[in-house]
Amino acid sequence: MAVRIGETWRNDGPEDTCFGCGHQNEQGLKVVFRRVAADAVEARYEAAPHWCGAPDIVHGGIQAALLDEVLGAAAHCGFDEEPDGSVNLVTVDFQLHYRRPCRAGVPLLLRGELLRVEGRDVFVEGAIRDAEGETLTTAEARWRRLRS
Amino acid sequence: MAVRIGETWRNDGPEDTCFGCGHQNEQGLKVVFRRVAADAVEARYEAAPHWCGAPDIVHGGIQAALLDEVLGAAAHCGFDEEPDGSVNLVTVDFQLHYRRPCRAGVPLLLRGELLRVEGRDVFVEGAIRDAEGETLTTAEARWRRLRS
Repeated sequence: MAVRIGETWRNDGPEDTCFGCGHQNEQGLKVVFRRVAADAVEARYEAAPHWCGAPDIVHGGIQAALLDEVLGAAAHCGFDEEPDGSVNLVTVDFQLHYRRPCRAGVPLLLRGELLRVEGRDVFVEGAIRDAEGETLTTAEARWRRLRS
Repeated sequence: MAVRIGETWRNDGPEDTCFGCGHQNEQGLKVVFRRVAADAVEARYEAAPHWCGAPDIVHGGIQAALLDEVLGAAAHCGFDEEPDGSVNLVTVDFQLHYRRPCRAGVPLLLRGELLRVEGRDVFVEGAIRDAEGETLTTAEARWRRLRS
């Protein structure tokens, strides 16, 4: 991938249909990423009302999808040296902690950080915060690199 | 709630807009539940292509949303004796383990089971299985009853 620090990107090629980040998926979340450090990716997001569970509160599964996106992008930070398209990573274990209500219709900041790569395992963590910097939901995950 | 064992239900009242189970949410998952035991709820589901991450594979966040729905329904099994509408439960901690690819366009069986209620905490677990009974994704969660 080797996105430069400070660079913003969106996946909007013809095959980018991923529910989370594919800008060709009209019914998806269409997350836009920004690499903010060698080991961290962020995304700003404002959730539409149809992503809610309880009224005004973003559904826990949608929060999981948003976090899975930035954690996955952060996981790819561990493979800057590899050729584009050669790194296939999948989520293996994913823990979420819902601490405060995550509201729709307000600016949210999603952040994912790469912790370490151990063989084929990639450990990441992240959070959803509100505009005041309050932590709403945190997550940790283990991703795994598929054999190519 | 006090849904009888063997009973199928869908949340299709005018205020049922939840992304996961609200049949008034045109852009939601529209899960339909069946209580299969005193402590267990199941749902059959076939995911549309737009819920995928990688092609044909249901996005990890959508799998989380599906599991959150059946785990939440199972959590409510602990409160059969309470009046309808008096029990408000929210997800607090949620762990997912993605074991095998969960495919779109094929029948999936979602299952949630109530483990125990401890004060305001409700412990549940569940899984997504395919038509052959193969376990694709498992989950455990702690829900919490809100003070009314």
